[in-house]
Amino acid sequence: MLESIPTFSRLVAELSKFPGVGKKTAARLAFYLLRCPDDEALSLADAIRDLKAKIRFCTVCHHITEIDPCNLCLDPARDDRVICVVEEPQDLVSIERSRSFRGRYHVLHGALSPLDGVGPDQLHIVDLLKRLRTGEVEEVIVATNFTVEGEATALYLGRLIQPLGIRVTRPAHGIPMGSDLEYVDEATVSRAVQGRREF
Amino acid sequence: MLESIPTFSRLVAELSKFPGVGKKTAARLAFYLLRCPDDEALSLADAIRDLKAKIRFCTVCHHITEIDPCNLCLDPARDDRVICVVEEPQDLVSIERSRSFRGRYHVLHGALSPLDGVGPDQLHIVDLLKRLRTGEVEEVIVATNFTVEGEATALYLGRLIQPLGIRVTRPAHGIPMGSDLEYVDEATVSRAVQGRREF
Repeated sequence: MLESIPTFSRLVAELSKFPGVGKKTAARLAFYLLRCPDDEALSLADAIRDLKAKIRFCTVCHHITEIDPCNLCLDPARDDRVICVVEEPQDLVSIERSRSFRGRYHVLHGALSPLDGVGPDQLHIVDLLKRLRTGEVEEVIVATNFTVEGEATALYLGRLIQPLGIRVTRPAHGIPMGSDLEYVDEATVSRAVQGRREF
Repeated sequence: MLESIPTFSRLVAELSKFPGVGKKTAARLAFYLLRCPDDEALSLADAIRDLKAKIRFCTVCHHITEIDPCNLCLDPARDDRVICVVEEPQDLVSIERSRSFRGRYHVLHGALSPLDGVGPDQLHIVDLLKRLRTGEVEEVIVATNFTVEGEATALYLGRLIQPLGIRVTRPAHGIPMGSDLEYVDEATVSRAVQGRREF
């Protein structure tokens, strides 16, 4: 039925390219855009154009930014001696939101995954090593995800970085805040017990 | 953190206006747009602009269309003697998809809901009556939703249309195809039993 309205079905097709958005959700979003005031819909269209026009990646840490180097790399209040390595910009955002880290960052843009054709050359690893060779860095926190690929990447980085005489750490595994022991998976509980700390 | 990247946070704000899309989902969609090729993102932006520029409502049936009257109203193969009344364009799409109806449509753009300030004047009811007065129509299928508002609207329309000597019907209530009797709610089972039919 909607095939007879090309403008509409084109929008549905475009929206259903979003991850996790199927044809039905896309149609719902399209109907929403149809009903909302013109300026609201157009301001979404403009925001998308602006994103593609203005956002780039920082040449130092590879985080998204509008200025290069990015604010995080320029901020004089941050500690140059610690670099936190993450897979994606959104991981960096998650750590920043926790306000637990005041050092610098390095975004790899992926994790090692030979089956998907992602080797060390596809990640920003050479750049990271270059940053480490300045001699200023004392610790690298490898905050890649706790998945097979993330762990493999962490291991790989550890082997590369430790010979430079730099401490390599990984965020602690353990029981998430506010969770009920009963429902925590056994691998997490086991890691939490191994990593127990004095009161 | 993302507040320091105005282009990005503006897009997240725009995307989170979508129904059912919170800040986290909006950020995920925005990161997707950031990573996808430029032309894919721009073609979404264009599709949104096009939608607002080209789509209008049919002056006969009030369905969405690019031409006025719409294809459904112009199609000579459809039966002028039956009009199916629905609340929203997406309801019409659902009925068209079922291929169970070959008459004309009328979209009310809502249902009676006095508490939300939606009275008969806010819906396309006057137009519907005008279409019925041509004398050609023999049956009106009131396919408003089976909610309190939809049922009230159906009742209201029934009272207006029956005096014109036109049959007013409502799609059958019953047990959905492929469902397990055990899990069907009692109101639906009760309606299905009342509406039972000869083999």
